[in-house]
Amino acid sequence: MPYQPRPDDIGFLLFDVLQAPQALQALPGLTEADAPLMAQVLEEAGKFVAEVIAPLNKVGDEVGCRFEAGQVTTPPGFANAYRAFWQAGWPALSAATEDGGQGLPRVLETVLYEWLRAANHGWTMAPGLLHGAYECLKHHGHPLLQAAYLDKLATGEWLPTMCLTEPQAGSDVGLVRTQAVPVAEGGLLPGEHSLSGTKIFISSGEHDLSDNIVHLVLARLPGAAPGPKGLSLFLVPKFLPASAEPGAPLGPRNGVFCERIEEKMGLHGSSTCVMRFEDAAGWLIGQPGAGLNAMFIMMNAARLEVALEGVALLDAAWQQADAYARERRQMRAPGPRPASRGPHDSADLLIEHPAMRRILDVQRAWIDGGRVLGYHTSLQLDAARRHPDPQQRAQAQRWCGLITPVLKAAWTQQGFDGASACLQVFGGHGYVREWGIEQTVRDARVAMIYEGTNEIQAIDLLTRKVLPDAGAGLAQVLADLQAGLDAAQPRHATLLAHGADLQALSTTLVQASTTDAELPFRVADDYLRAVALVLLGWAWTRIEATPGADVPRWQAPAQAFWDRVRPEFTLRAELVRTQIR
Amino acid sequence: MPYQPRPDDIGFLLFDVLQAPQALQALPGLTEADAPLMAQVLEEAGKFVAEVIAPLNKVGDEVGCRFEAGQVTTPPGFANAYRAFWQAGWPALSAATEDGGQGLPRVLETVLYEWLRAANHGWTMAPGLLHGAYECLKHHGHPLLQAAYLDKLATGEWLPTMCLTEPQAGSDVGLVRTQAVPVAEGGLLPGEHSLSGTKIFISSGEHDLSDNIVHLVLARLPGAAPGPKGLSLFLVPKFLPASAEPGAPLGPRNGVFCERIEEKMGLHGSSTCVMRFEDAAGWLIGQPGAGLNAMFIMMNAARLEVALEGVALLDAAWQQADAYARERRQMRAPGPRPASRGPHDSADLLIEHPAMRRILDVQRAWIDGGRVLGYHTSLQLDAARRHPDPQQRAQAQRWCGLITPVLKAAWTQQGFDGASACLQVFGGHGYVREWGIEQTVRDARVAMIYEGTNEIQAIDLLTRKVLPDAGAGLAQVLADLQAGLDAAQPRHATLLAHGADLQALSTTLVQASTTDAELPFRVADDYLRAVALVLLGWAWTRIEATPGADVPRWQAPAQAFWDRVRPEFTLRAELVRTQIR
Repeated sequence: MPYQPRPDDIGFLLFDVLQAPQALQALPGLTEADAPLMAQVLEEAGKFVAEVIAPLNKVGDEVGCRFEAGQVTTPPGFANAYRAFWQAGWPALSAATEDGGQGLPRVLETVLYEWLRAANHGWTMAPGLLHGAYECLKHHGHPLLQAAYLDKLATGEWLPTMCLTEPQAGSDVGLVRTQAVPVAEGGLLPGEHSLSGTKIFISSGEHDLSDNIVHLVLARLPGAAPGPKGLSLFLVPKFLPASAEPGAPLGPRNGVFCERIEEKMGLHGSSTCVMRFEDAAGWLIGQPGAGLNAMFIMMNAARLEVALEGVALLDAAWQQADAYARERRQMRAPGPRPASRGPHDSADLLIEHPAMRRILDVQRAWIDGGRVLGYHTSLQLDAARRHPDPQQRAQAQRWCGLITPVLKAAWTQQGFDGASACLQVFGGHGYVREWGIEQTVRDARVAMIYEGTNEIQAIDLLTRKVLPDAGAGLAQVLADLQAGLDAAQPRHATLLAHGADLQALSTTLVQASTTDAELPFRVADDYLRAVALVLLGWAWTRIEATPGADVPRWQAPAQAFWDRVRPEFTLRAELVRTQIR
Repeated sequence: MPYQPRPDDIGFLLFDVLQAPQALQALPGLTEADAPLMAQVLEEAGKFVAEVIAPLNKVGDEVGCRFEAGQVTTPPGFANAYRAFWQAGWPALSAATEDGGQGLPRVLETVLYEWLRAANHGWTMAPGLLHGAYECLKHHGHPLLQAAYLDKLATGEWLPTMCLTEPQAGSDVGLVRTQAVPVAEGGLLPGEHSLSGTKIFISSGEHDLSDNIVHLVLARLPGAAPGPKGLSLFLVPKFLPASAEPGAPLGPRNGVFCERIEEKMGLHGSSTCVMRFEDAAGWLIGQPGAGLNAMFIMMNAARLEVALEGVALLDAAWQQADAYARERRQMRAPGPRPASRGPHDSADLLIEHPAMRRILDVQRAWIDGGRVLGYHTSLQLDAARRHPDPQQRAQAQRWCGLITPVLKAAWTQQGFDGASACLQVFGGHGYVREWGIEQTVRDARVAMIYEGTNEIQAIDLLTRKVLPDAGAGLAQVLADLQAGLDAAQPRHATLLAHGADLQALSTTLVQASTTDAELPFRVADDYLRAVALVLLGWAWTRIEATPGADVPRWQAPAQAFWDRVRPEFTLRAELVRTQIR
């Protein structure tokens, strides 16, 4: 069953719960972003995803990308769908109008990509880096390099890649060895270098979706310092421009070659390439040695996208399991027999069985709450850049820095675990290909690894975001969240208590880490999970406080959150405390 | 890296922790089962598994079973390996000597199959039901049917299947529709019927591993009652005997056909068949209408095997991740730098990183503790059948009935979740096929579903084993476990407190269920998990109390259990209590 976007659900969260239009219209450049416009974009996006992208999910898995003689053939239909995608202007949604974009709020792009990933994770890998590459070039590229490449990335006519990983350098990007040697005789564009080295795990490193491929490559200049501070960033196209003139036609093939593609657990619709750079011409982006800094623009936005990938795959799994549970009858459900169950058959629908209802409602608790947090973060990304008040910009920036790793790790973990729980609803039918749910589980697993493994996210949160300022930033974020809570409401009171406990725990960790340097690394995963549960609780208080939320659609997952999910907070806090010596 | 059985580990648990030889030698018929004999069998079994079965795991996944024109071709090497297996006498390990078996304790077979599954889950599906089918026929078959089939199943020369599931009848076996009509003119053997219907998810329903295939089929006699009590069991061979004489050669093909095999998430080395029975000749096993009763002999033993399948796949994943963590260097590990870490390199081994050590140690806590519990249960299966004292037999029976569903559900869940955690150790390399870990994850998933889904196990535990006797049986099991604990030791005191809490929780549930019939179904999964954690704690107290356990090999997982796993008990108890209204 192909994924079906539900714009009404998103509309309730964006317009009613988060009041996104009001927030966005306060930002210069986004004053036109009212609810009717945003709703219309969502409606159209939902149609495109349902009609063009979702139907290709199964063939993407079953046929997959094929590699032969350096060429990658994407699954049948993928190239046509990509052409339809960029020609309809979808990649340009939030790019600046002066670059050929539509200048719409970033959160619309966030929702679009969430749906695309839910509908067809493999296909979406190719355009997934477009916006990040565009931002990177826009902020750090030489004007002549921008003239040659920026509009191609803004519109999506050419697809980019992000080339970090090497065989010896996975999570440890400081071990990168690819060399970039300055070209003595100038070159076509400013900052030309010759690059040589091997990169692995390059998503869409080679394919037949766009006429050119624009690689953003981390490499080391001659004599560069070892470690991450010796890395510089380069733009290396598959085809060189025929001349230095902006708009020049494609010229000769550059020295960038796909050696092979990986056989993977899932994500078969995406080519994961080993790329060889052999005296390839490339142009420096940003300052020498500041490569990671330039690339972080891509990586931070990508982290939020991957967090919502967890939400997306979980929603895809939920849709599959929910539909199955509403048509499959097995055994009598326990308890009193409501009239809605119909005649006294020998077997009831799976949805009537408490264990199955629990699986479904718990996933919805994570999906809906994750959307509130993810969209709120996306709104903060716009606020951090555009808000006229520097204090508001700083506050938005603090939220994004602290919360993004939490969302990435906790929601990609739940994306996989929850998809597996949804598979369980199918019984034996879940383990066979026919129903599609096992593909969702396989496709969901990768998000726990890329864009920084979940363990790296947890270490990032605690050792780079919480400990350095002695927990002050997190305390401020928590205080902002709790400002809207009412201690007289039992659920709010529980959440306030958890917030206070988290605060105390952070203070304890700040102190204990001074004498036990390994401590943060022992507790980072549990600490992140505790933060995630408090955030999820806040999201549910926001949903529950919204007029219109007093219906089963929102009440059932709310109940599942408070009764089935929330109690884990106490466990995580204890798991952290046990490690303090 | 192919799986490597470690007989020393098993020996420590069997001989030192569980003192299995002393327990077994008290049982009539097993007085020869001393430690040297058992150790020798384990040594030989380990060699066979490592040399013959483990190397075929990868090809089993990559080539898989092929289906063409009703025939199944197993992956290259599988048929030769199976011939070597049965001709070396491995299937006959614990079969009675009068049936051509070796009359050894069942626990040796338990260990053998655990290793086989760890080494090659797909291949092991075929012989996995041999012992159960043998027991079923031995206890319920007509003597003439036994004369024709019992030694073939005891030796493994012919492979069996278990045919329960139908398209409309998954977990709800009462919905089975396959018909069995008595043959008017007698037949080759007593109790002949003609069977027609379709069965799905039949593991090894068709293959090229043995000359004949012996299907055990649940079907409904004409006029049988609806539901599970109307089901009878039949033996339906692929090839009929040429005559009624014992030892007759194979005669004509029976009306049993493989329609297709399923494409699955994993387990590609095993054919999962849709089987069509078309006027197939079969012979009644046991009484009409008592089919489920006869088959339960197979299913209960199979449940324990599947619980140890969880242990097996988890150990396979652990071996893969542990080896990788000891050769791969990424980033500096935190904390003081012990001399063992060697020179001050730019990157440390993964095993030095706390998040990775935790993943590995937590899995070992489940593996080693699960082995203690699984082997203990296997010993109880022998005691339940053979012990001269009826009270001891009853006690053993009580343990098996109560504990088997707990082991099945909790350890297959951990088998999958823990394998996925081990995949995480590999980073991006875990998601690609090359290293084999993603196969382990895919192969592990099915065990949560078959032999009764984990949700069914939880309902079985609470509604059929705990509530009916108002928790008395569980109380007795807990009392037996706690008898050896010393409240003066902090870890024992914690476990005693959890035991008392579990006892109180059970009493509360017994009472609350009288007015809330749905309650047990809402809490069954958490309740089972709470029981599992208490059992696992008991297993670790047994290991820790054994001379020789004061080494890192056992201390590291013990610590991981008490600090990282055990605290979940309180969460599960709270999740149960939250549901009491």
